[in-house]
Amino acid sequence: MNRRNPQLNANGELIHLLSTEGLGKDILTQILDTATNFVSVSTRDVKKVPLLRGKSVFNLFFENSTRTRTTFEIAATRLSADVLNLDIARSSTSKGESLLDTIDNLTAMSADIFVMRHSQSGAPYLVAQHVPKHVHVVNAGDGRHAHPTQALLDMYTVRHFKGDVSQLSVAIVGDVLHSRVARSNIHALTTLGCPDVRVVGPRTLVPSDMSSMGVRVCHDLQEGIAGADVVIALRLQNERMSGALLPSSQEYFKSFGLTTERMRWAKPDAIVMHPGPINRGVEIDSEVVDGPQAVILSQVTFGIAVRMAVMAIVASNEG
Amino acid sequence: MNRRNPQLNANGELIHLLSTEGLGKDILTQILDTATNFVSVSTRDVKKVPLLRGKSVFNLFFENSTRTRTTFEIAATRLSADVLNLDIARSSTSKGESLLDTIDNLTAMSADIFVMRHSQSGAPYLVAQHVPKHVHVVNAGDGRHAHPTQALLDMYTVRHFKGDVSQLSVAIVGDVLHSRVARSNIHALTTLGCPDVRVVGPRTLVPSDMSSMGVRVCHDLQEGIAGADVVIALRLQNERMSGALLPSSQEYFKSFGLTTERMRWAKPDAIVMHPGPINRGVEIDSEVVDGPQAVILSQVTFGIAVRMAVMAIVASNEG
Amino acid sequence: MNRRNPQLNANGELIHLLSTEGLGKDILTQILDTATNFVSVSTRDVKKVPLLRGKSVFNLFFENSTRTRTTFEIAATRLSADVLNLDIARSSTSKGESLLDTIDNLTAMSADIFVMRHSQSGAPYLVAQHVPKHVHVVNAGDGRHAHPTQALLDMYTVRHFKGDVSQLSVAIVGDVLHSRVARSNIHALTTLGCPDVRVVGPRTLVPSDMSSMGVRVCHDLQEGIAGADVVIALRLQNERMSGALLPSSQEYFKSFGLTTERMRWAKPDAIVMHPGPINRGVEIDSEVVDGPQAVILSQVTFGIAVRMAVMAIVASNEG
Repeated sequence: MNRRNPQLNANGELIHLLSTEGLGKDILTQILDTATNFVSVSTRDVKKVPLLRGKSVFNLFFENSTRTRTTFEIAATRLSADVLNLDIARSSTSKGESLLDTIDNLTAMSADIFVMRHSQSGAPYLVAQHVPKHVHVVNAGDGRHAHPTQALLDMYTVRHFKGDVSQLSVAIVGDVLHSRVARSNIHALTTLGCPDVRVVGPRTLVPSDMSSMGVRVCHDLQEGIAGADVVIALRLQNERMSGALLPSSQEYFKSFGLTTERMRWAKPDAIVMHPGPINRGVEIDSEVVDGPQAVILSQVTFGIAVRMAVMAIVASNEG
Repeated sequence: MNRRNPQLNANGELIHLLSTEGLGKDILTQILDTATNFVSVSTRDVKKVPLLRGKSVFNLFFENSTRTRTTFEIAATRLSADVLNLDIARSSTSKGESLLDTIDNLTAMSADIFVMRHSQSGAPYLVAQHVPKHVHVVNAGDGRHAHPTQALLDMYTVRHFKGDVSQLSVAIVGDVLHSRVARSNIHALTTLGCPDVRVVGPRTLVPSDMSSMGVRVCHDLQEGIAGADVVIALRLQNERMSGALLPSSQEYFKSFGLTTERMRWAKPDAIVMHPGPINRGVEIDSEVVDGPQAVILSQVTFGIAVRMAVMAIVASNEG
Repeated sequence: MNRRNPQLNANGELIHLLSTEGLGKDILTQILDTATNFVSVSTRDVKKVPLLRGKSVFNLFFENSTRTRTTFEIAATRLSADVLNLDIARSSTSKGESLLDTIDNLTAMSADIFVMRHSQSGAPYLVAQHVPKHVHVVNAGDGRHAHPTQALLDMYTVRHFKGDVSQLSVAIVGDVLHSRVARSNIHALTTLGCPDVRVVGPRTLVPSDMSSMGVRVCHDLQEGIAGADVVIALRLQNERMSGALLPSSQEYFKSFGLTTERMRWAKPDAIVMHPGPINRGVEIDSEVVDGPQAVILSQVTFGIAVRMAVMAIVASNEG
């Protein structure tokens, strides 16, 4: 196991994107600045740049997510790469082949970038430390650990609508404990100098010891979003809605659902974000989703540009 | 709800293809004429034109149909578009996201054209009225309502082999009641001035009140195809073959199956069409399928060109 | 039924690749020589040549194999072809359409090459004899019959590492009886003049009458690989591991598993090959897989080049 940050080469350049944790402000800012240039590509008549022409991008989704896979496929296609979607659930992995044997095989087919989602936390690290120098790994979500491109597109969105992150109050509301999105956002916000990050939700989903991540823990929604510039609602996973962690989705909405009235507790010009897909009427009211403060669809648009930026940057650096 | 035809913009130009119903002879003819130019593309050495280069076409098949999806994928690829196939059954829709939220998300990824199949009649209308002006919807089959590209390729085929539709007798044989193909063909034939359209089948599948659509209802095959220039056999869906509507597929074949002998009731140079996939020996005898009057594979070939024409036309018009 | 070899046109040029059986040394050598030129394409910065630009390659996998399908998709993409993956299990075939009706439909969409895997031996022959002259069929594995591109990439690998096949001893170890890979390799080796081919395994998997194929049958591993230049381990299918044919995978490993110690029976510079995916600890020990004699990942790399060569050659010849 290498003590050096596996995301960076010896020159400190990004070669894999595995987590926002451990990346400096310079790298995060480089990605966001590069994404700015790519936002316009998707508004052109010909939505393509030739940056990754002839490169092979493999979408390795061990956990199914049509939405995230699609955004990476679009991003790679707009960079002119060749994209291969591997239906992993039905492939050799199920024939008993190990993860690293699968990776070795695809590397032997001259892969350039692996975009990888896996239910096990850390799987992309394992792969990144295994592949040869010219191959790059982008984590598209691993277990409860990290979802760095979602965090980066969230940072892009915050910066686009509210400017300098170091002047802002940001509240993350919902099932923070189980959310890789929340975790990656907290690291990115902290690194970019955000002085006031709050995590908001019931004690079962936001335990008090999360304060060790440098955030304020709030179990009351009003206290949690009071004066916030940015409110990020997390998706409530169906599997938490009944049982030990939450009494029901209606109960959750009663205490923590974002409504137009409650949004008045935040700053008047606060924005509302959500990683999608939305459960209308569970973590967020339809009126808020469709209202003027929501920037949820802008997040999606910026997500393409941020993923283009990440792939373009890692592909330009050697391990 | 807009009273204007949602398929046309204020200048009367085609911006969505949702149904052959409500489209004028000028629009139908424009599509068929444009398709003529595209037929030759598929016979070239390099089967591509750069018309939709850098455009994003999303195949949204909420109802599975590998065949139809493939024809649209080929058509879009030959126009040089980037095609994304969304496996909707496994995507966010199944996570409780609404159809329009899914559409908003994909639109935010800078989609240009949605090709959409849905089990609910009218779903493509809902989407067409929801998307921004620069996004286009092509209906690839909605419930029992419409299948306009199938009807247009049928019109192309008729025109190619038999010339001016206003001089022809056309018989549609089979489960007309439940067929979106039949419905779309009837509208297209009527609009193009076909003076003699017959719908032919047992009372359970061809009720007498279908005559209100401007067609002649026949419950006897001989009467139905007598002197016809064109005989369109419909696919008999398996789910109708037993039970209340039909005694059995053998019974159906005995009364309404197209055989070489029975085809003598039609004009000697009549053509036989079928939307596929064929049930040999159920709605049509193998000898007819493989015989000189069948133009079923030409329909497939023309289908690519017609779909290229539809996508090229809608993409060139603003909403 | 045509008596002429269906893989060759009247000039003796390759128009379909169905089996290594029946192909002469000249054709096999042409494929291997052409592949040499394509190996470098996958190491370029832009991994593409425009040879098949605008051609339509259909991947028809009636039997699922993500790995093999992926290698053909990559090969076709690097030749700049448009690739369509057909999810046959869910398509019209399951609606009762016959194989040849499906093929006719896809041919009518202007297919150029069908890459086909099928559980029934001979299915690709049926298709090759059915399609028009300008359409080509590449067998990606049919039943227990043949897997010619695997055999060709194996021949490429042997030639690359050990030189002239006519000077070599080659041992194929494992379930030879049920292996289309073994069968295709035996034909290719024999045609290329390999003087010493041994098939090695228990009597249930390597019956004595296999000697009629011109190979030596060995039921003892030491005898089988003694002095061999090349040892090809076959994958042991799970379904054989218990029951009548084999007592258990542990028993098999005890008698026929390749270990570092046993590999000393072969020549000191012998290479070890495997078609993948590997069952570590069943047919081959991990130490061998990861050791210096294994060329298993080179096989994968050469497989892309060999498939590019096959598609480029057949596409350049008329039926």
